Amino acid sequence: MAADIEADGDASSSAHRVHVPLEGRSYDILIGPRLLERAGALLAERFPGRRFGIVTDTEVARAQLPRLGASLDAAGIAHGTIVLPNGEATKSFSRLEEVVEGLLAARLERGDLVIALGGGVIGDLAGFAAAITRRGMDFIQMPTSLLAQVDSSVGGKTGINSPHGKNLVGAFHQPRLVLADLDTLDTLPPREFAAGYAEVVKYGLIDDEAFYFWLEANRRAIFEGGPERAEAVARCCAAKTRFVLADEKETGVRALLNLGHTFGHALEKITGYSGRLLHGEGVAIGMVMAHAFSARLGLAPGQDAERISRHLSAAGLPTRLGDIPGEIGGTDAIMDAIAQDKKVSRGALTFILTRGIGQAFIEKGVDPGAVRSFIEDQRHT
Amino acid sequence: MAADIEADGDASSSAHRVHVPLEGRSYDILIGPRLLERAGALLAERFPGRRFGIVTDTEVARAQLPRLGASLDAAGIAHGTIVLPNGEATKSFSRLEEVVEGLLAARLERGDLVIALGGGVIGDLAGFAAAITRRGMDFIQMPTSLLAQVDSSVGGKTGINSPHGKNLVGAFHQPRLVLADLDTLDTLPPREFAAGYAEVVKYGLIDDEAFYFWLEANRRAIFEGGPERAEAVARCCAAKTRFVLADEKETGVRALLNLGHTFGHALEKITGYSGRLLHGEGVAIGMVMAHAFSARLGLAPGQDAERISRHLSAAGLPTRLGDIPGEIGGTDAIMDAIAQDKKVSRGALTFILTRGIGQAFIEKGVDPGAVRSFIEDQRHT
Ligand SMILES: NC(=O)c1ccc[n+]([C@@H]2O[C@H](COP(=O)([O-])OP(=O)(O)OC[C@H]3O[C@@H](n4cnc5c(N)ncnc54)[C@H](O)[C@@H]3O)[C@@H](O)[C@H]2O)c1
Ligand SMILES: NC(=O)c1ccc[n+]([C@@H]2O[C@H](COP(=O)([O-])OP(=O)(O)OC[C@H]3O[C@@H](n4cnc5c(N)ncnc54)[C@H](O)[C@@H]3O)[C@@H](O)[C@H]2O)c1
Repeated sequence: MAADIEADGDASSSAHRVHVPLEGRSYDILIGPRLLERAGALLAERFPGRRFGIVTDTEVARAQLPRLGASLDAAGIAHGTIVLPNGEATKSFSRLEEVVEGLLAARLERGDLVIALGGGVIGDLAGFAAAITRRGMDFIQMPTSLLAQVDSSVGGKTGINSPHGKNLVGAFHQPRLVLADLDTLDTLPPREFAAGYAEVVKYGLIDDEAFYFWLEANRRAIFEGGPERAEAVARCCAAKTRFVLADEKETGVRALLNLGHTFGHALEKITGYSGRLLHGEGVAIGMVMAHAFSARLGLAPGQDAERISRHLSAAGLPTRLGDIPGEIGGTDAIMDAIAQDKKVSRGALTFILTRGIGQAFIEKGVDPGAVRSFIEDQRHT
Repeated sequence: MAADIEADGDASSSAHRVHVPLEGRSYDILIGPRLLERAGALLAERFPGRRFGIVTDTEVARAQLPRLGASLDAAGIAHGTIVLPNGEATKSFSRLEEVVEGLLAARLERGDLVIALGGGVIGDLAGFAAAITRRGMDFIQMPTSLLAQVDSSVGGKTGINSPHGKNLVGAFHQPRLVLADLDTLDTLPPREFAAGYAEVVKYGLIDDEAFYFWLEANRRAIFEGGPERAEAVARCCAAKTRFVLADEKETGVRALLNLGHTFGHALEKITGYSGRLLHGEGVAIGMVMAHAFSARLGLAPGQDAERISRHLSAAGLPTRLGDIPGEIGGTDAIMDAIAQDKKVSRGALTFILTRGIGQAFIEKGVDPGAVRSFIEDQRHT
């Protein structure tokens, strides 16, 4: 099967390979250790004669850029680098302009490539910049956060935030290659690792009960960096790829990937996209809420939300509104943020609900009143 | 044939219809009088229940928006309007942001539509804003300049300018409908009409000698607004459509539409995208230069450039570098602007050259030295 995991052909490595066979734009996701060291050779082979513009952030530049730079230099590959401040605020119009103008100033041509070296912020921003520079440059994802490796680097959604909400501006633009170097996770702050883990759990909750139970059993090993970590990342990439292949432009089933995200995005918004609540942390709370809300609607067993909450808490994640540090404001603010989310269609609320672990589904006609009274209750638990 | 011109089905009108049968995104171009008055009824029929965000500029808002607004109101269609300053400088990152945020502030959803009411500047900017808002909203072109009716509103190229060059940032995004109301041209400043006429002539020069001669014979009638004007616009739309169908993403033959544009863009750039030289005026000089340069390379008959120059001059267009008011700087500046043009590939210059009227072709390996010495000479004629 296309989105299944294979051992990478290169015998010198222990990498996994997930192939994404999109028509005319198929690409590989390579997952394994030491991929940044191999990047120079890989790019020289796959994109001979091209030039590269690296986009990264200050933290990743410090922790990981030297490895990539040395590898490109050793392969004699011309490249320039644009370094942006780290953090969600970088996904803005002004940073987009900065990257686009930087790529143009470097005189990169249409056949040259942009490399996104970083977490989801850099991947989304640099991918979007590639999509619109010269009406479409190729780009490569080199995800360095767990979240980016299991989620944002796969599937071609790119974009920036608006004062009106997250990811409201962007393009669908598929990368030409994804290199998920597991060694990069060694320098990732633990809180960021945990946030990425929320998205890992999401794949189990959506439609893979067995994977969810496997995660409960192997959580410690994944956090400690055993071979289970590589397996978890590869299984997530394969799962995400299946959704992308089924529905590239998110007109249908791909929306299941938003499990926990309607609540999560709203919480990120009201906390101002600040360090107060990371994306994955919002998703963790949102997933527990999605299960609790589904139970309240009589759709799902009541104990699932509790079970998932224990699992995520053990991983160091917040799971209730009360876990968010500081004031979060009133229910109105949350409802307003939900209504402005892009999954609103003609005034009705669309939510990903569930019948239980591994049984998520898309519900388009959710009653805003029911959401409001659920949130009211949640604010006091 | 798909891109041929048909009489519009509606017996109450004298409109032409050009169908653009792009797979999954086919659309109609309607060309005729009183289309803004019919817009309300047309949109209600084709896009029932949708909301519309109109993007336009100050001049067009004054001259044409009341007609459109009344028609939408009469049809009971909800709409908001964003009015921008007129002029090329509006194709900028900051105006792009303004339009995108304006569409989001109006809470337009993914199924709603953006209407670009204006010349090529508004069409390019609003189309690009639609392409990236919510990762892709539908849009409608209502071109009000001759240039926009015969060229920019057809084919899905959208974008903005960069300090590094024109149209270096953008997306391919096809409209859902094009309404080219010929009555709008009544308020277009004469100099703008002439500039659009340069693009009309271009279609003849590329591959339709008969159309070119027909234009020489009917130029006066076209400027005076007879039925020849409708015919000229419709023939241009059909011609452009044929190129777009053959090569949507401009990887091949569509580049022929850039006849006169490599020189033209360079001249626009060095004159600062100001009123000093309109886009079509740059193209007029550029087309004459392309013919003269081809003659100098021994490819084309020497007298064509002269003949075309007479035709364009009679239409009120500049045809030589010396016709540009004020100082244009040295040959270096022109060469630099040419080199940064997006039609540069791996350092070699790509030009549209010609073997004579109606016989343009793409030449990828043009020697920069030959271009330089040609420009040197042109600066003294
Ligand atoms: N495109 C998609 O499909 C998609 C899917 C999910 C999330 N997202 C987006 O992804 C973003 C979140 O991604 P994220 O969690 O990776 O955030 P991020 O990019 O901000 O990275 C988190 C933090 O970790 C740092 N960091 C990353 N890798 C590091 C490393 N190896 N060593 C040291 N520090 C490192 C970064 O500098 C940053 O401070 C959000 O903007 C979200 O909207 C996109
Ligand atoms: N997308 C494409 O394929 C494509 C092709 C060719 C040109 N273009 C772009 O088109 C732009 C030039 O288009 P343009 O010449 O229409 O410029 P424009 O949009 O600036 O319009 C020219 C002037 O005429 C005014 N105007 C337009 N219609 C009017 C009307 N009916 N009544 C009164 N005033 C009116 C405008 O306000 C403006 O001042 C350039 O930016 C060029 O890059 C794009």
